[in-house]
Amino acid sequence: MKLSDLGEFGLIARFAPPFLKGLGRSVTGIGDDCAVLPWTKRAALLVTTDMLLEGVHFLRATISASDLGAKSLAVNLSDVAAMAGTPRSAFLSLALPADIGLDWVDGFFRGLRRLARVHGVSLLGGDTTHSKGPIVVNIAVLGTAAPGAIRFRSTARVGDIIAVTGVLGDSGAGLRVLTEGLPIGRDERPLVAAHRRPRAHLAEGAWLGRRPCVRALMDVSDGIDSDLKRILEASRRGAALDLEKLPLSPSLFAVCREHGWKPLDFALSGGEDYCLLTTVAPDAFGPVAAAFRRRFGRPLFEIGRVTDRKGVLAYRLHGRPKEIRRRGYDHFKRHEARR
Amino acid sequence: MKLSDLGEFGLIARFAPPFLKGLGRSVTGIGDDCAVLPWTKRAALLVTTDMLLEGVHFLRATISASDLGAKSLAVNLSDVAAMAGTPRSAFLSLALPADIGLDWVDGFFRGLRRLARVHGVSLLGGDTTHSKGPIVVNIAVLGTAAPGAIRFRSTARVGDIIAVTGVLGDSGAGLRVLTEGLPIGRDERPLVAAHRRPRAHLAEGAWLGRRPCVRALMDVSDGIDSDLKRILEASRRGAALDLEKLPLSPSLFAVCREHGWKPLDFALSGGEDYCLLTTVAPDAFGPVAAAFRRRFGRPLFEIGRVTDRKGVLAYRLHGRPKEIRRRGYDHFKRHEARR
Repeated sequence: MKLSDLGEFGLIARFAPPFLKGLGRSVTGIGDDCAVLPWTKRAALLVTTDMLLEGVHFLRATISASDLGAKSLAVNLSDVAAMAGTPRSAFLSLALPADIGLDWVDGFFRGLRRLARVHGVSLLGGDTTHSKGPIVVNIAVLGTAAPGAIRFRSTARVGDIIAVTGVLGDSGAGLRVLTEGLPIGRDERPLVAAHRRPRAHLAEGAWLGRRPCVRALMDVSDGIDSDLKRILEASRRGAALDLEKLPLSPSLFAVCREHGWKPLDFALSGGEDYCLLTTVAPDAFGPVAAAFRRRFGRPLFEIGRVTDRKGVLAYRLHGRPKEIRRRGYDHFKRHEARR
Repeated sequence: MKLSDLGEFGLIARFAPPFLKGLGRSVTGIGDDCAVLPWTKRAALLVTTDMLLEGVHFLRATISASDLGAKSLAVNLSDVAAMAGTPRSAFLSLALPADIGLDWVDGFFRGLRRLARVHGVSLLGGDTTHSKGPIVVNIAVLGTAAPGAIRFRSTARVGDIIAVTGVLGDSGAGLRVLTEGLPIGRDERPLVAAHRRPRAHLAEGAWLGRRPCVRALMDVSDGIDSDLKRILEASRRGAALDLEKLPLSPSLFAVCREHGWKPLDFALSGGEDYCLLTTVAPDAFGPVAAAFRRRFGRPLFEIGRVTDRKGVLAYRLHGRPKEIRRRGYDHFKRHEARR
């Protein structure tokens, strides 16, 4: 059997169990957006790490060094946001071809430093090394969170309302615009920006973590089709998603209309949206959504319900069942999808 | 200017300063074996990370998956040893070609798990992703240390005795045996083993950290020529190294004699020895070395002295100055040296 038959989640399921044995109750290991370790009485320690490879996660031709430096950090900040935490420090491993220009390297660090400063994150260490092939970036981020604020993937309950903190699909469509070399006009611009300069929803995550009615929480990195399944697996629940409720931007509609693309494909499995996906107790959703809108100036978008059909993610269109073929991004099975 | 003109340490010197500004006194950032963060009253948090790329740091043909899994962790444990700390948890990022065999992946995790278990280290998270080129492994390790036990590179004093906790050069010679495809006989075997299965000197580091006379401490990863220079830079001191005192194994001598290689080349800049390099107050060295020998059954090898000739690493052979051409491994400047 090859790795490609198993897929990313099959691989994790294969190697993770022995590493999860014997962990204390206060420790969360493999399987959530961050690991959680006991720290002080008032704060737990969060740890997350993400690796980006040239040719797989980015192309030098379609993202500037500065944007890549910032994005490499942002994807980790998004994992901290998904635990309702505050990022504190970062550790960078960077493998570079020997012939790379110093202006590229300077740009990378400029972008990284700027975003780090915005969020009060200190770059405290790492490893720089030579690569004979692709640029490789790995960032690990440490953060903290009040133990009571942390939300997991495993705590969704039947009847919870499923919601997202931002629009879906812009980043995936922006990537397609870039890889197909299409002209970047008024409508393409925000999609390309969503792909190149994702914003981690740290304020939203911390805000949601203070509300007891907020149950499961994770970030949208692979696309909600795939990511919601992670919540369903961890919580041993199902979900019904209302396709007409998925928040799509006017730019996404406009660009899809022009090129004959389907907006839903990007919304469900484009990936890299980096907003948050949450489930909220149904009786509290109204007041929370209203407060969210007051605080952030945009809706907490309701997109579906948690059901008792364990492991089943059902799609509905205006209340009627709808078959969807596409599945979420898998780093081993469908890696061509992104390039 | 290209990265190859600048070199690894030039690169770090170029980007690090802005990240070091404004750190609190209790935080150690870029520039030592681990970052140090405040934790509890009795323990500081250590963080280190290392990236290994296929074709640069290892070849699939010359190291088994199991040895690679263990070595990827061991190089990080060595950084924790260099801070006199105890490793606690690990975070793995792994990029794999889609056509890799599952037996390889299983072997990698078996080796990693076995070494993690020996040292009580929990694998708590990470990232698995697809690679279109090399296998890439990045491990970040968190550890703890009593604040008073931690030793830095910056605390060597003039007159200190420089010492190492193990023999030098075996790993570098083992790598050359492997890359030249030489037959592995009785003498080659321990050299190849040193390269494939390095042992982090955790017990030695913790033991040294309990002795007030032990001043600077780091691990030998690039070769003592390069690594000692890091101590000299950080401490703003110089050193005189007595070449005849460098601890070389009988196997290294035997293999070098057979192939016409120079043992000193491997001892000074072969790299990947992963023993510890330390400086000790001169009046206390005798008793400490005797206690070290009682505890570990081998000498704490004295190899030279710290001098006041800032930044100058002078070599002596039986008391006489000796010019040495070779310099330590630089990940950008001399990457051919290892392959």
